[in-house]
Amino acid sequence: MTFAGRHIGPSTDEQRRMLETIGYGSLDELMDAAIPEVIRWQDGLDLPPAATEEQALAELRALAAGNTVAVSMIGLGYHGTHTPAVIRRNVLENPAWYTAYTPYQPEISQGRLEALLNFQTMVADLTGLTTANASMLDEATAAAEAMTLARRSSKSSSNVYVVDADALPQNLSVIRTRAEPLGIDVQVIDLALSPLPDEFFGLHLQYPGASGAVRDHACLIAAAHEVGALVTVAADLLALTLLRPPGEIGADIAAGTTQRFGVPMGFGGPHAGYLVVRAGLERMLPGRLVGVSKDADGAPAYRLALQTREQHIRREKATSNICTAQVLLAVMASMYAVYHGPDGLRAIARRVAGRAATLAAGLRAGGVSLASDAFFDTVTAVVPGRAADVVAAAASRGVNLRLVSADAVGISCDETTTPAHLAAVWSSFGVDSVAPVSSPVPLPRGSDFLTHPVFHSHHSETAMLRYLRRLADKDFALDRGMIPLGSCTMKLNATTEMEPVTWPEFADLHPFAPAAQTTGYTALIGQLEAWLAEITGYDAVSVQPNAGSQGELAGLLAIRTYHHGRGDSGRDVCLIPSSAHGTNAASAVMAGMRVVVVACDNDGNVDLVDLDRKIASVGDALAAVMVTYPSTHGVYETGIAALCAKVHDAGGQVYVDGANLNALVGFAKPGRFGADVSHLNLHKTFCIPHGGGGPGVGPVAVRAHLAPYLPTSVSAAPFGSAGILPIPWAYLRMMGPDGLARATGVAVLAANYVAARLREHYPVLYAGNKGLVAHECILDLRPLTKATGVTVDDVAKRLIDYGFHAPTMSFPVAGTLMVEPTESEDLAELDRFCAAMIAIRAEITSVAEWGPDNPLANAPHTAAMLTADAWPHPYPRSVAAYPDGVDRGPSTGPPCAASTAPTATAT
Amino acid sequence: MTFAGRHIGPSTDEQRRMLETIGYGSLDELMDAAIPEVIRWQDGLDLPPAATEEQALAELRALAAGNTVAVSMIGLGYHGTHTPAVIRRNVLENPAWYTAYTPYQPEISQGRLEALLNFQTMVADLTGLTTANASMLDEATAAAEAMTLARRSSKSSSNVYVVDADALPQNLSVIRTRAEPLGIDVQVIDLALSPLPDEFFGLHLQYPGASGAVRDHACLIAAAHEVGALVTVAADLLALTLLRPPGEIGADIAAGTTQRFGVPMGFGGPHAGYLVVRAGLERMLPGRLVGVSKDADGAPAYRLALQTREQHIRREKATSNICTAQVLLAVMASMYAVYHGPDGLRAIARRVAGRAATLAAGLRAGGVSLASDAFFDTVTAVVPGRAADVVAAAASRGVNLRLVSADAVGISCDETTTPAHLAAVWSSFGVDSVAPVSSPVPLPRGSDFLTHPVFHSHHSETAMLRYLRRLADKDFALDRGMIPLGSCTMKLNATTEMEPVTWPEFADLHPFAPAAQTTGYTALIGQLEAWLAEITGYDAVSVQPNAGSQGELAGLLAIRTYHHGRGDSGRDVCLIPSSAHGTNAASAVMAGMRVVVVACDNDGNVDLVDLDRKIASVGDALAAVMVTYPSTHGVYETGIAALCAKVHDAGGQVYVDGANLNALVGFAKPGRFGADVSHLNLHKTFCIPHGGGGPGVGPVAVRAHLAPYLPTSVSAAPFGSAGILPIPWAYLRMMGPDGLARATGVAVLAANYVAARLREHYPVLYAGNKGLVAHECILDLRPLTKATGVTVDDVAKRLIDYGFHAPTMSFPVAGTLMVEPTESEDLAELDRFCAAMIAIRAEITSVAEWGPDNPLANAPHTAAMLTADAWPHPYPRSVAAYPDGVDRGPSTGPPCAASTAPTATAT
Repeated sequence: MTFAGRHIGPSTDEQRRMLETIGYGSLDELMDAAIPEVIRWQDGLDLPPAATEEQALAELRALAAGNTVAVSMIGLGYHGTHTPAVIRRNVLENPAWYTAYTPYQPEISQGRLEALLNFQTMVADLTGLTTANASMLDEATAAAEAMTLARRSSKSSSNVYVVDADALPQNLSVIRTRAEPLGIDVQVIDLALSPLPDEFFGLHLQYPGASGAVRDHACLIAAAHEVGALVTVAADLLALTLLRPPGEIGADIAAGTTQRFGVPMGFGGPHAGYLVVRAGLERMLPGRLVGVSKDADGAPAYRLALQTREQHIRREKATSNICTAQVLLAVMASMYAVYHGPDGLRAIARRVAGRAATLAAGLRAGGVSLASDAFFDTVTAVVPGRAADVVAAAASRGVNLRLVSADAVGISCDETTTPAHLAAVWSSFGVDSVAPVSSPVPLPRGSDFLTHPVFHSHHSETAMLRYLRRLADKDFALDRGMIPLGSCTMKLNATTEMEPVTWPEFADLHPFAPAAQTTGYTALIGQLEAWLAEITGYDAVSVQPNAGSQGELAGLLAIRTYHHGRGDSGRDVCLIPSSAHGTNAASAVMAGMRVVVVACDNDGNVDLVDLDRKIASVGDALAAVMVTYPSTHGVYETGIAALCAKVHDAGGQVYVDGANLNALVGFAKPGRFGADVSHLNLHKTFCIPHGGGGPGVGPVAVRAHLAPYLPTSVSAAPFGSAGILPIPWAYLRMMGPDGLARATGVAVLAANYVAARLREHYPVLYAGNKGLVAHECILDLRPLTKATGVTVDDVAKRLIDYGFHAPTMSFPVAGTLMVEPTESEDLAELDRFCAAMIAIRAEITSVAEWGPDNPLANAPHTAAMLTADAWPHPYPRSVAAYPDGVDRGPSTGPPCAASTAPTATAT
Repeated sequence: MTFAGRHIGPSTDEQRRMLETIGYGSLDELMDAAIPEVIRWQDGLDLPPAATEEQALAELRALAAGNTVAVSMIGLGYHGTHTPAVIRRNVLENPAWYTAYTPYQPEISQGRLEALLNFQTMVADLTGLTTANASMLDEATAAAEAMTLARRSSKSSSNVYVVDADALPQNLSVIRTRAEPLGIDVQVIDLALSPLPDEFFGLHLQYPGASGAVRDHACLIAAAHEVGALVTVAADLLALTLLRPPGEIGADIAAGTTQRFGVPMGFGGPHAGYLVVRAGLERMLPGRLVGVSKDADGAPAYRLALQTREQHIRREKATSNICTAQVLLAVMASMYAVYHGPDGLRAIARRVAGRAATLAAGLRAGGVSLASDAFFDTVTAVVPGRAADVVAAAASRGVNLRLVSADAVGISCDETTTPAHLAAVWSSFGVDSVAPVSSPVPLPRGSDFLTHPVFHSHHSETAMLRYLRRLADKDFALDRGMIPLGSCTMKLNATTEMEPVTWPEFADLHPFAPAAQTTGYTALIGQLEAWLAEITGYDAVSVQPNAGSQGELAGLLAIRTYHHGRGDSGRDVCLIPSSAHGTNAASAVMAGMRVVVVACDNDGNVDLVDLDRKIASVGDALAAVMVTYPSTHGVYETGIAALCAKVHDAGGQVYVDGANLNALVGFAKPGRFGADVSHLNLHKTFCIPHGGGGPGVGPVAVRAHLAPYLPTSVSAAPFGSAGILPIPWAYLRMMGPDGLARATGVAVLAANYVAARLREHYPVLYAGNKGLVAHECILDLRPLTKATGVTVDDVAKRLIDYGFHAPTMSFPVAGTLMVEPTESEDLAELDRFCAAMIAIRAEITSVAEWGPDNPLANAPHTAAMLTADAWPHPYPRSVAAYPDGVDRGPSTGPPCAASTAPTATAT
């Protein structure tokens, strides 16, 4: 069977039966009817024909062979690390972890919520601050978020943000990218030599510095506080096991990466960034935060406590656009800390510091002077005029060093550094080796950390393995059943796509490794960008943005710069339909734009009359329109071409949010039907797994006129989350042009099949051409809620009892459920879902009889409830545990979900 | 932390507390007290010091680089195959599958029982026979078992077994090894040219033949039946999707391998062999067989229906000694069939046959004649005098062919064969390519197969992934909790040990690949054999036996041949203590020996007085004594050295069963305290995972005088299950001599700790020096059973409710439980187990009050029982679901085991 036959759930025969149900003779006929003629792309995709899984793996092995795994001593926030094999196999390579969704349904997410709480505890403990969120995209974007957090928390009226000159260069670059549209004045000052300015609202310090120098920042911080500024310390977590933490020197915020806690470098990512604040700033944190709550029975339970995203995001009042985080990698980093415990981490840090001390001693003994004598893992050697030669000599010995300047070389030690590596470095400098030395680190830490029992209980591999299994068993992921989340596209993440991610040739490359060592990656990325350009009809694609939100920002910044480049600096209005994803508005604000909302008509389409009105009213201020296609209502709007023309005629650019690109691949190309720029969500359309809430990859695609204006620093690493790009590469390579189009067709077929089967039980809210939906459908619960009091939340929770994750709730329309079955669910699973929804519909009818104590209100029924001695409810236990009409397969049992997690309610 | 610190469960601090409990100051002190002075090895182990996990992986990568993955067209029962990635990752690389034990507790084994039932269905359907067992060790041993099955089922008085000359050479070799001690006369006849003899009891045919020829065996089979002989057809399952199956041409038995159903060649193994019989022979099948039964509530459930092993084995009346099978690989092969379904398998077979047809056409067109024109996947090319040159020419093109003779070359196509491979073959013969042809296979199959829905329901990767997860979730394996099975040693199978198994350089080598391509393997095997010799004190080790049972047979055959070689052919008595594992006696019988049982004394030790008596009574017939050390009672018997001396003095050899070697490593060496030969269970002591009932690896170790007498063909492949030898290699390399000794000490400590904590609740049956047990302890339930009626079965089942696999039941002493905690369980898990046992003891006291309807009798409580509307029992649900005194961790729920599987009872 072809790979497409494995990826696409329904067999040909099942597709035929589904087509019969909705009254079409073939997929082609369906797609001809569904997709507006005006955007239909008829010429197919110019992509290589489908490879088999084995061919694709062979080609990936050949690409991998183009990468050279050298010893990396470049540092700069990316370090060699030993991923504990038990974590690699049982988290990163385990579909129970990598196919999970963001934990919005806490009842079936207690496992990853606990892991994320561990992550937050780890970050807070190590930094000595109070409250951490559950991961940022990388250190540089975390540092940029810290800047805006400082801006909105500082009482200073200054717009100056001071960055110490010893900051990591990529942190500075991303801070600059983010500052410019917000009117923040970034001033880079070498604070070792020069004083702070009189007024500024925030200060960014690196600890240890990019040079490796460890300085006592306490006085600078106190001085900053004097003028009302907030201080961010970008700190290395491993160093903090030995050094006085930011919280103890007065920092307000700390930001950084957790990469070296067992997460492979991956040529730059994905890794979990962190952001943590002192008491008093908690409510300013962007992103997600896990908290401990109580369930309906009073038992402790975890839930997301704070989140600024999607339907919760404050749209044009948003202060951050972060949605997808790096959950999978945050889980890995937290488990690294759980596995090693505080003593283990300290031991690793001491070994690393010992290597650096020995390295330094050898260099000094050989007459090489060092830029600083206070360091943790990194030394900067001063070799006037010789730096390039030294770096080349090391490279010839298989060791990559950092060329700081013509006169200086940076060398970072890490967990993987061996005496042989030190010897290679010494000989590259032409100096002799010395006996190992150890010297006390500067600014030693006095306080304890990671005192919670979880960091002391899982140090044998057996214990760790069981902890990971126990947590995974509490969660519902794609390996257990359908996750029909509209707008989130939870489709197959095939094993063959995933396998190369953990090959050393893809996993163990530093993002700043010499180009000659990364030709495999550059070839793969080049092909992937070209294929994505062909699919979308754009002229250029950049994979740098490491989440859709960053892709949006990059695309909008390109529009902004384009207008500015043409002298049109007054164009600062972004039109956004009322149905848009909240992130769109947030990104527009971050790109320095004002948001003007365009209404939707009664059919859910963008109201073109209101569009005309808004275009007229904003006049020359029109920068762009930002629309999702197919719309967030799951409809192929016929007015899209007209919309594009109207905006172009008014001098604006058209941004098409690529979130729903999976309904277009092979059938329409945004770059050819009028759009100027899009971002793509590789974790939606192109099979990067959701990982429980990340990683995402959000490439930005533009037409030629915008290409020169794309920002180059929206993420820390040059190619963003390069380490997982083999996934979409493999997907495209194995599906081929025909398979991709077929996937689109079956996704649309599946949505229409579900709509047809459920229409008589729940009204389907919007439809396009010929009454067809696109790749998802909205079930309108509002009439039922009005009549019975049963809400979408009740239905969503009851679905857990039936063994399903809920559809998307109340987005884009409050009081509705949006269902996206994707092409990967076979007919049996689609029917099982429909049967569950129909059975719940019947239960809703019975609510009148049961009263307020009914199975919908009490869902999901936990194992504790179901096995309690007392059963005080008016409906029987069997109805709670084994709802009617749902086949649970050969050996029955209560749904896995309900049997493992308590019901969380807000405290 | 060192690897030993990860492998060994209790931390140093926990060890200290455990030592306190049993009254010792240190591990050394404990071991000095426990191990008899007379056998104590004081000089440590001369092994390389412990490597870190990363170092070991790096060394394994270097060894792997010594292997060359060529295109294998050698055939002979080993074929290239595409392991579906979803099966590789979610079975072979998934601890939920590979750390499971043999499914003796059906309540927590329904997942792998279902997979094995699928395997049996697959084998029976494809061969057209009735009843298959749940895997043999390989095709050659299956063929040998078929021979003995024929011997005991045939009414013929002949002792002649006819093997057709076109049999696979390794099948013939193993058949000869097995036949000789049983007095069976193997006659090899080219039945294409010569007639059958007048009398014989069995006939072995290969289908297709080793030459590739497909012959219609129907007439031969009918002729064999005429004289009362039974006929075995060793058949290729992929071929059977297209060819008329053995059952339809009259075969009584079919045997073979399922390797090419997605199981990597692994340089020879492990793969699942199969054995299947026609109606009427079911009860003659050796090994395990899964059947469908009903649980206590009448629901269908799977269980082992037939088994000839361990306590069930019929000791000296046994007809086979097979214990460990190849469950993990059988699961993989069955899932390959589930994933492809009958249409998919046929399509693969047609593609393979098409390649062979094209290959043949090209050879013929180029003037090369073929030995047979009727073939499936293999052709034999006749090239007088040129064969070696052709094979060399192909090797230079990266293709391995089979050198049949100076005049003939064998070429096998398989699932991985491409047109480019054919081109390489043609050019090696100096002939031109032709256009692809397809020709109908000879003897086409007319019957359907794999009609059960399971082979039609999981063809998308999503469906397959969920099926694997659903089955795994029904089972209890080491990834969920302790499996305290005495004599079975369920300790950590570390991820780092497992990872190399699926690297292509270890997975994709043919066992008969040219030596130059396998230097990595030979180096690894050489080191492993040397290390095992050092640990055991023997002079030579062979890793060929692919299970402990085969190692036993090999060792006993060495003794037999040794005596014969010295003219002592009358020595045919094997003394075996009454406490011995049943397999010992079975192996002795298979080695042509008579078993004489030696009594045990009241302390469970071998009764040396009875030994003297038996030695005297058997006189010159004494061949050997076979003892387990420490004994199966879990005791270091002090009389072992005396026992060895007595047997040697009487002219016998001493066989020490290495099953309990994990209690000796680093502290005593059988080869130095008097034994002449042992087999080792690498899946017990050296961390090969149990895989749900296999693979095992059972090397045989001998002193120098026996080395020349070791049989060379006890398994099909030269190095047995070579593909998993990286596991024990990695274990030894990472533990180092100190770590290994520490593991032994902690295993003994843990057993004594459990004994000390439980002694006041359950009498501990046997002890040795100073009241200490060795690595396991026997809890005597007999007094309690007598007083209360509660049996070991009740306790074992109730332990499931507490979240544990049962200890070993009624072995070696009926009415007892034998507990082996191993070194890998940390103190928290040991205490959780002790708490559960103590709580159950209290429940036993309450049985008088509850009467026959009590939680022990009804255990394990299934989810269906616990959530039923009615609760008719005198004890509350909460007692059933949440027994007292057991901590279930942060979020509680019923034990995973009880919530997923029904209770099986015999039908």
